Amino acid sequence: MAGRVQEKVPLSELLRRHPADIAEVLTTLKEEEAVELLRRLYLRRAAAAPLGEMDPEEAARLLAELNRDEALHILSHMDPDDAVDLLLELPEATVRDLLSRLEARKAQMFRTLLAYPPDTAGGLMSPEVLALPAHLTAQEAIEEIRRRAEELETVYYAYVVDEERKLLGVLSLRDLVLARPDTPIHALMNREVVTLPAEMDVEEVAQLFDKYNYLALPVVDKEGHLLGIVTVDDVMDVMREEATEDLLRVGGIPAGEDLPLDPPWSSVRRRLPWLMGLVVLNLSVAGLVSRFEATIAELAFVASLMPLIADMSGNAASQALTVVIRGMALGLVGWKDLPRILWKELRVGLLAGLGLGLQIGLLSLLLWRKPMFGAVAGLALAGTTVGACLTGGAVPFLFKRLKMDPAMMSGPVATTVGDLIGIGLFLSLATAFRAHLA
Amino acid sequence: MAGRVQEKVPLSELLRRHPADIAEVLTTLKEEEAVELLRRLYLRRAAAAPLGEMDPEEAARLLAELNRDEALHILSHMDPDDAVDLLLELPEATVRDLLSRLEARKAQMFRTLLAYPPDTAGGLMSPEVLALPAHLTAQEAIEEIRRRAEELETVYYAYVVDEERKLLGVLSLRDLVLARPDTPIHALMNREVVTLPAEMDVEEVAQLFDKYNYLALPVVDKEGHLLGIVTVDDVMDVMREEATEDLLRVGGIPAGEDLPLDPPWSSVRRRLPWLMGLVVLNLSVAGLVSRFEATIAELAFVASLMPLIADMSGNAASQALTVVIRGMALGLVGWKDLPRILWKELRVGLLAGLGLGLQIGLLSLLLWRKPMFGAVAGLALAGTTVGACLTGGAVPFLFKRLKMDPAMMSGPVATTVGDLIGIGLFLSLATAFRAHLA
Repeated sequence: MAGRVQEKVPLSELLRRHPADIAEVLTTLKEEEAVELLRRLYLRRAAAAPLGEMDPEEAARLLAELNRDEALHILSHMDPDDAVDLLLELPEATVRDLLSRLEARKAQMFRTLLAYPPDTAGGLMSPEVLALPAHLTAQEAIEEIRRRAEELETVYYAYVVDEERKLLGVLSLRDLVLARPDTPIHALMNREVVTLPAEMDVEEVAQLFDKYNYLALPVVDKEGHLLGIVTVDDVMDVMREEATEDLLRVGGIPAGEDLPLDPPWSSVRRRLPWLMGLVVLNLSVAGLVSRFEATIAELAFVASLMPLIADMSGNAASQALTVVIRGMALGLVGWKDLPRILWKELRVGLLAGLGLGLQIGLLSLLLWRKPMFGAVAGLALAGTTVGACLTGGAVPFLFKRLKMDPAMMSGPVATTVGDLIGIGLFLSLATAFRAHLA
Repeated sequence: MAGRVQEKVPLSELLRRHPADIAEVLTTLKEEEAVELLRRLYLRRAAAAPLGEMDPEEAARLLAELNRDEALHILSHMDPDDAVDLLLELPEATVRDLLSRLEARKAQMFRTLLAYPPDTAGGLMSPEVLALPAHLTAQEAIEEIRRRAEELETVYYAYVVDEERKLLGVLSLRDLVLARPDTPIHALMNREVVTLPAEMDVEEVAQLFDKYNYLALPVVDKEGHLLGIVTVDDVMDVMREEATEDLLRVGGIPAGEDLPLDPPWSSVRRRLPWLMGLVVLNLSVAGLVSRFEATIAELAFVASLMPLIADMSGNAASQALTVVIRGMALGLVGWKDLPRILWKELRVGLLAGLGLGLQIGLLSLLLWRKPMFGAVAGLALAGTTVGACLTGGAVPFLFKRLKMDPAMMSGPVATTVGDLIGIGLFLSLATAFRAHLA
């Protein structure tokens, strides 16, 4: 059902499919074939909906291949919020040109939407919302809905407004259906409307929908005028994108998608620059180790635990920062919680470090039969763990403060700090007690 | 708005809040205070909805503290799908006891729902669905909906069924509102209904909702009988849980939640066993290194790059497996794609390894002025990268096949394999060319 679509499907059959399926076909085709198909869809007046279901970047690439009249026609038939997402991916000059040739009302709507940053409620909303004057009766409201049903994205809720379009209340379609026809809608409406300020961050919007299970929420400006509506499907897209981003960034994929079956070169282009940066970061550890060459030459066996300490630093840092990054995404912690988190992760690091130190100490004793080496290794691993937990808990806040992606940079930085502490401690202790270790 | 709730709120004010807010208060209170509050909510007949908004495990813990009559009353007033999630967390004997004392119709409904595994469409659905006989007119249908509005979780869609409750078509409330009152509903309904088989995996269900933006879908058995309905809010919960799980597991948090401000001991209990397992896994690398003690004693400076190789193995493996795990979650790749993924990751590893090898080779040459050492380091880092990419791409499939969580185990295993290949290659080459390195 949700499987992949074969590449060759006759147009007539394709037109019977859901726009999301047609979008999937467009995505899997080579660019010139996709443009060709889009043109044939356009001739059947069926190009707008699938383009709205595509990733805006890809959709914009295809649209740019069409001529201006084709593009204008398609844009004016798309859901305005999808059209605007697409316009945001086109060069500014092209957007100005297109807007100047669109029907005035549409152009004005697009301009208003383009003014909101894409990561706010205003950037997410559709302006095509059902606003009803407060003096209508239930029957009149139903007739108004009937007249406008075609153009509206969703009619699950109707919003009741005054003459200045200030939001007064909300009506569910269910309330209207269940009411007596002559009841005035201001008597039916629910006055306690949850509203989204246009400038609210999309993450916060997603948290609201998730917590209270809304299907749609109205967007208002500072004076309470109704601007548009955010629907649950838009929010699901946001949630999926945020979750994806966090996962990809924690995993070390800097930008964009990188799908499992993408061609290798495109994956390398995304992954290699990041890895090369990490090599440079890691040279600090190499520099540190090279200061202890004398100890290593004398006690070569200490080298055997260095990769273990390096790996464990990464593992402990990863746990701490995953918990913090997820807490940030859920809105559970902010900058003001930093001291509490540091205090917590310090204690976690000490407790876990104690456990790991004892473990590696005992294992070293058993494997190498050198009690002093066991003690040194244990202390070093405990130090690594404390360092990695503390920095793993703290660096996501620093990067967020610096407006950098915390999920991306935190892992390597915390790992390197843990390495420096752990390996530095390990080799210093080994140097100090070299007489007892040989 | 989505901020934290203070602990002390008068009951009368609390009762005016959304059940999700009351659930949040219950979650933040200490257990005995939460039970006390739950009892006071129960006396005001307001305990069922907040309990349904809570994490089922926590809700079950609170419910278990109430007496049987209180528990029965609350259970029978909860949404059936939430009640069943809660029952699944209680001891079997308690569940049997509770079910035997519930009203027969409710008990039967709960037993039916309990029979479906929680990770299937059947386990996710609510049985309280609006099923209308095909012979009704639009007006009769609206009256039927009006009569049943109280008990139904959602009436955004009505399902048209035959006398045996086989699903014939779907009707949106919008269709009903927009139709002439005397039209028979079988003429209004859409016959092309997307249905969820009761045994469909919740991940697949979430993918369908996400792709096609449904608000609700009907669940049917193998013969097409209507069993219940899955709504978009249930699916959002599933999506959030799956995304969370993947992120936490990739980060190395084995089970449950681990929130940033949890007490340290509870975090240590979750994190330490995993770290201790990783130490054991990592000893294989220590064992490998210790076989090269003679080389290290002679050429102590080679040790300086070992932590770098260990860390880079982890970084490259993490990228490959993140892409694969995300592809699995999106349903883009399965077991049959393993050869293509291996072939891709082999080429990614070779290309990225070439880049990194050149980089570290040049850096080593510049820093240590030993061209031969640069070549050895470059080859070793290239080998690590290939090994880490290949295993990072492959091991998630193996763990999935073994019914183990691929997000959890893949990172450390791929990192260790990359370490063994990279460090083994590094020290072997250093040993072979020791005469040229000194």
